[in-house]
Amino acid sequence: MPDLDLEEFRRLGHQLVDWVAGYRAGIAGLPVRSEVAPGWVRSQLPAELPEHPQPFEDLLADVDRVVVPGTTHWQHPGFFGYFPANASLSSLLGDILSGGLGVQGMLWSTSPACTEVEQVLLDGLATALGLGREFTFAGGGGGSIQDSASSAALVVLLAALNRSSGGDWRETGVEGTECVYVTAETHSSLAKAVRVAGLGARALRIVDPSPGSRAMSPSALAAAITEDLAAGRRPVLVCATVGTTGTGAIDPVPEIATVAHEHGAWVHVDAAWAGVAALCPEFRYLLDGVELVDSFCTNPHKWLLTGFDASMLWVRDAAALPDALSIIPEYLRNAATDSGEVVDYRDWQVPLGRRFRALKLWAVVHSHGLEGLRAHLRGHVALAAEFAGRVRDDPGFTLAVEPSLALVCLRVVTGGGDAADDAASRTVLERVNATGSALLTHTVVDGRYVIRVAIGSVATEAQHVRALWEQLVTTAAQVRAEAAAAR
Amino acid sequence: MPDLDLEEFRRLGHQLVDWVAGYRAGIAGLPVRSEVAPGWVRSQLPAELPEHPQPFEDLLADVDRVVVPGTTHWQHPGFFGYFPANASLSSLLGDILSGGLGVQGMLWSTSPACTEVEQVLLDGLATALGLGREFTFAGGGGGSIQDSASSAALVVLLAALNRSSGGDWRETGVEGTECVYVTAETHSSLAKAVRVAGLGARALRIVDPSPGSRAMSPSALAAAITEDLAAGRRPVLVCATVGTTGTGAIDPVPEIATVAHEHGAWVHVDAAWAGVAALCPEFRYLLDGVELVDSFCTNPHKWLLTGFDASMLWVRDAAALPDALSIIPEYLRNAATDSGEVVDYRDWQVPLGRRFRALKLWAVVHSHGLEGLRAHLRGHVALAAEFAGRVRDDPGFTLAVEPSLALVCLRVVTGGGDAADDAASRTVLERVNATGSALLTHTVVDGRYVIRVAIGSVATEAQHVRALWEQLVTTAAQVRAEAAAAR
Repeated sequence: MPDLDLEEFRRLGHQLVDWVAGYRAGIAGLPVRSEVAPGWVRSQLPAELPEHPQPFEDLLADVDRVVVPGTTHWQHPGFFGYFPANASLSSLLGDILSGGLGVQGMLWSTSPACTEVEQVLLDGLATALGLGREFTFAGGGGGSIQDSASSAALVVLLAALNRSSGGDWRETGVEGTECVYVTAETHSSLAKAVRVAGLGARALRIVDPSPGSRAMSPSALAAAITEDLAAGRRPVLVCATVGTTGTGAIDPVPEIATVAHEHGAWVHVDAAWAGVAALCPEFRYLLDGVELVDSFCTNPHKWLLTGFDASMLWVRDAAALPDALSIIPEYLRNAATDSGEVVDYRDWQVPLGRRFRALKLWAVVHSHGLEGLRAHLRGHVALAAEFAGRVRDDPGFTLAVEPSLALVCLRVVTGGGDAADDAASRTVLERVNATGSALLTHTVVDGRYVIRVAIGSVATEAQHVRALWEQLVTTAAQVRAEAAAAR
Repeated sequence: MPDLDLEEFRRLGHQLVDWVAGYRAGIAGLPVRSEVAPGWVRSQLPAELPEHPQPFEDLLADVDRVVVPGTTHWQHPGFFGYFPANASLSSLLGDILSGGLGVQGMLWSTSPACTEVEQVLLDGLATALGLGREFTFAGGGGGSIQDSASSAALVVLLAALNRSSGGDWRETGVEGTECVYVTAETHSSLAKAVRVAGLGARALRIVDPSPGSRAMSPSALAAAITEDLAAGRRPVLVCATVGTTGTGAIDPVPEIATVAHEHGAWVHVDAAWAGVAALCPEFRYLLDGVELVDSFCTNPHKWLLTGFDASMLWVRDAAALPDALSIIPEYLRNAATDSGEVVDYRDWQVPLGRRFRALKLWAVVHSHGLEGLRAHLRGHVALAAEFAGRVRDDPGFTLAVEPSLALVCLRVVTGGGDAADDAASRTVLERVNATGSALLTHTVVDGRYVIRVAIGSVATEAQHVRALWEQLVTTAAQVRAEAAAAR
């Protein structure tokens, strides 16, 4: 028997569940950011793999001794970096089921429930978000769980290339005249998708923002498209972002879609972080214009309590991805596929195999209900509003841009001018991170250094956001005093 | 508190571990293949998502009522289809840890242990397999865990395109003259990678096999390359397969690599299924020629006890993938990346985010030791040899090709000629699958229908393979009798 004895699995499984509970119970007491040096983790583990079975307890001991100190704790309540990753415990329960079943959902026929539970959930969430019936399977579209918004952007670009070429792309590849439109704030995954798809960076058009905003200017988009058409190039895809990574900017989807469609370009909405908030009626404006777009992506693994990886991608035309991606070798042929009655999700993604990821999303939706999910989102938005209010009211700080949902971008004000403010902001961020009680990351807006406070970790509550504010105030005061003393 | 209470998580976590243990304990009594009709699973679940939290026990009840009958049981001991997927219980323990930690390993700095444990393991497994020091980080190469061999093939193709263009590919994309060489037996993921990369199917060269074999002919490869060069085309990548999906054929890597390198093409070895067997000295011949290739891929999630997804990809040049794939926006900049001392695995893959997949692989290697893994592999190869012997000795069957490791390809012999044998083989396969005690899949070799018996499920033991043989004998006898009666 090459596998664990079932009783041994029960014993160890319970022990591991308890380990996870203990880890989460104590996580607030750990430094958020790992302070180990490059190579430390490797130096702590034997280079040679064991010849013989080792007690599982030894691995757990190594996890405590090496992995935990070598880990940046994304589930820590003081995690305000990047966008948080919501690995809730209800999601983990669903993932244990998925691992226990151990099925491969590449084809409908290789595990019908793996496909159909995903269809039910994505249809249900499309409705709950207000995406409209045309993005559900019943309405001729449909959704799928991708590993990430990066992969979603790639497959959407491929579908757009295929459609734009009338299907020739599958046989003859890209032509070198295709263009993709983004802004300087668009996630780097779009630039990566353009590269992966063989278009090269020259195909990427960085469209200017509207004056005074960080959102794509529809008239600049129209001008860029006109210029490309005049030069014999082909507009293939426009990516509108709802909630950019840097500052949470929201591109004007209705106007962008109108311009893009005049010229036959696919419109993709990347709402990786912000999109889930549309579950709340007061944030449904995030979907304005979605009735005009071809695809929409948002990630439960960022802010909807679901463990990475779970990125939801909906398309208006359920045939678009299979048209672009399907290749059927003999060993994958089967009656269900031939019938045309089923969805084979392998044709919606680059990898062939796929896990039963819908179970963790199902566990989350089931355990919290839509009202629970809304409360989670609203709680963070309220904390961000409170935090932004303090920034606004304190002359020692300034908002770099208006807050967007649960993302607040700020700078330290020193009175010494832009360069001094930027240096102080950087120093404050580094000192806060070094304390281990919070983790912040930065961006650069119009050449200025900006501290991002992304509220959204599952465990983050009012006390943690308030403690962060106190720490920022104290640290900035120190930094200002040091600067004054040095002058 | 939007997440589960920790005591509730403990209680439910234990319950789920027990559910998994119970599922695995009873799995042999379930029909391997789900017999539900398209739409049945959807019809059994409410279309509307719940507004309020629901008891987890209700979800488990739905899993028992809908998901289990809607699932094809890949962990069933009678699963002989495709290649099995090894979701061992030790792997699941590691994955529970990963889910509990909930970290994001996109950059070294976002969780050093997530990167370095993977490096230690991949270096250790490179050594254990006999890949050679040049594929380890210490030797200037290195390994990473990809989600699948499909994604591995794609990133390798991108690195080859980048290298072949001297880096111009990143800016100007593909030229349309690039060529990729495979055989008719190569996995369809290569054709998909060629399509995704924007080359189109016209870039794919299907190289003939050597006479009397299903393996790529080095002289045919040389001829194809010469012809392409003469026509102004550019050989970019040759994929050699060690253990094809259809029949387990093994391309002659040393000769292929020699031909390919004369013309600067990247050589990738796709050993997705078979490669792990090189852990056993008697199967190390599978790596013959690997010292000449650029990259090598094998999947622990197929036959090395590790739950999907875990595909190991090693490259000889650790800079090759980052050179092709790296894009650094401001919000991902950090001191560790700037130092050049660390590996940022996001640059080895298409998605930005990544789970801590190394923990499940670590749990497997740790729990079984290399000797345990070898015993697992050897056990299945021995069962396949025994099974193939029965096929060989029975005039009612014939081996379609010589067995390859744990894969046996056979046909039913009726005495009525090829068409009758093909029809009988198909009928026998369908009837065996319909009983629910075993799952077989097929392929077509030289136009002939072939039953594949892929031995490799974690739970498969001698009794299950012997029972399959008895069932094949009995079913084939019935089918022959029916055919005789109908004449």
